[in-house]
Amino acid sequence: MNQSLDYKIHAPIGVFDSGVGGLTVAREIMRQLPKERIIYFGDTARVPYGSKSKETIIRYSRQIAHFLESRGVKAIVAACNTASAYALEEIRPELKIPAIGVVKPGAKVAAETTANGRIGVIGTEGTIASQIYTEMIHRHNPDASVMGKACPLFVPLVEEGWLKDPVTIEVARRYLASFQESGIDTLILGCTHYPLLRSMVQEIMGEGVNLVNPAYETAQELKRLLSQHKIPNDGKGDRQMPMYQFYVSDAAEKFKNFANSILPCEIEEAQLVQIEE
Amino acid sequence: MNQSLDYKIHAPIGVFDSGVGGLTVAREIMRQLPKERIIYFGDTARVPYGSKSKETIIRYSRQIAHFLESRGVKAIVAACNTASAYALEEIRPELKIPAIGVVKPGAKVAAETTANGRIGVIGTEGTIASQIYTEMIHRHNPDASVMGKACPLFVPLVEEGWLKDPVTIEVARRYLASFQESGIDTLILGCTHYPLLRSMVQEIMGEGVNLVNPAYETAQELKRLLSQHKIPNDGKGDRQMPMYQFYVSDAAEKFKNFANSILPCEIEEAQLVQIEE
Repeated sequence: MNQSLDYKIHAPIGVFDSGVGGLTVAREIMRQLPKERIIYFGDTARVPYGSKSKETIIRYSRQIAHFLESRGVKAIVAACNTASAYALEEIRPELKIPAIGVVKPGAKVAAETTANGRIGVIGTEGTIASQIYTEMIHRHNPDASVMGKACPLFVPLVEEGWLKDPVTIEVARRYLASFQESGIDTLILGCTHYPLLRSMVQEIMGEGVNLVNPAYETAQELKRLLSQHKIPNDGKGDRQMPMYQFYVSDAAEKFKNFANSILPCEIEEAQLVQIEE
Repeated sequence: MNQSLDYKIHAPIGVFDSGVGGLTVAREIMRQLPKERIIYFGDTARVPYGSKSKETIIRYSRQIAHFLESRGVKAIVAACNTASAYALEEIRPELKIPAIGVVKPGAKVAAETTANGRIGVIGTEGTIASQIYTEMIHRHNPDASVMGKACPLFVPLVEEGWLKDPVTIEVARRYLASFQESGIDTLILGCTHYPLLRSMVQEIMGEGVNLVNPAYETAQELKRLLSQHKIPNDGKGDRQMPMYQFYVSDAAEKFKNFANSILPCEIEEAQLVQIEE
């Protein structure tokens, strides 16, 4: 094995999101690939991405991807549906390392597992307006009928901590009403915050609807990608290097508290980075 | 009158906010000072400010104030409670023109008009955490008892357009419950989005509670400031110069639609600016 490949094997995975939502993806990577190191970047100074334009999302994602590359990561995961939808194809050619998003893995499994060909997608305004899930689903299943619904209040409700609250249930009922009439059998949780509302959404939609969590599918896709490039971590390497590192563009303390409420490990610090520079 | 002062008289007022909320302040200036030109900047690429740190808010406000100065404004209004609370004192010494915020005028009138000395303040997390309203109220009325409550769901509910919705009423009831027990007689709407929820808040609080709208008080303060500097517009000047100009850092079309739903005039265009550069 040459030295460069050996370095790469032990290098961390770069994971980024507009804020805390991507932690649900980092959590799945920790569970499914426990030997991999992770560097997480949350763009908490410019959150949320969901309501911003394509040009702005590309500019922000480019800054972050280059920051992660400069930290020596071996692969990048855009753990943000909006960034995956708008920016991934644009910035991939500029990177020296492979990069995946959360949209393609979630779309693929939904396209392959639907029985009646009727798939729903919930997400931010940006993700739904981009039609990216429809496009990706049609690559695998051109006859599928895809219905999207933007749910802009879900993120602030999750961040308020009202996860099983009557207000959140009422908001969810309203957002999901159109799906109940249209007879979907598969619903993609197309925003990284939404897995935290999973049981509520399942209850409203009923057991007959299969919920797809792109975080889970993305960790599976990452596993395949690392094997394909022959760079999965063998668990050896520099033991001085921390397993998990967290960077944010603002409000590090608040980020740390949220992270510790949902991650399986305790994080001690989130470091502040001026990402605009 | 010298040429420089003459130029200043006809120069526009610079008004800025993190997004659309400051339009409620621009609307008051249009109503109360109909001869004044306005240049409005909405930082829609980095909205919201309410959950961000002091350092970040200062950096963003500085960029915007310098942009407005470069456009030749004669005074600046920080039409954003978070920017007024965190950044105004910091950036004022760097400016060649006078600058006011929305916090001081609202705090002053609340301090002077309360009968029982019990004042409530609602706002974003940033505004409430800064304790700026308490500090400003105490300058005018040191014995007043001030109670703050962050209402982070109000902005996304307003932006969803659910202004008189049962969900918004339930959220408002919950946020306002603590005030009903504490017997306040004055409540400051400490976020520029909140005047759009005014009638709902008034109904929940009852007619015995006086609502203070800082947008109204800020337009009054601006009128005094212009007189004091001898630069109120006499309505003459260059008729080619547009009365109202709008700039945003992202999503110009969406901004224009929201602006046209709440302003007394029809705006034709919001121009995109790369404010980071």
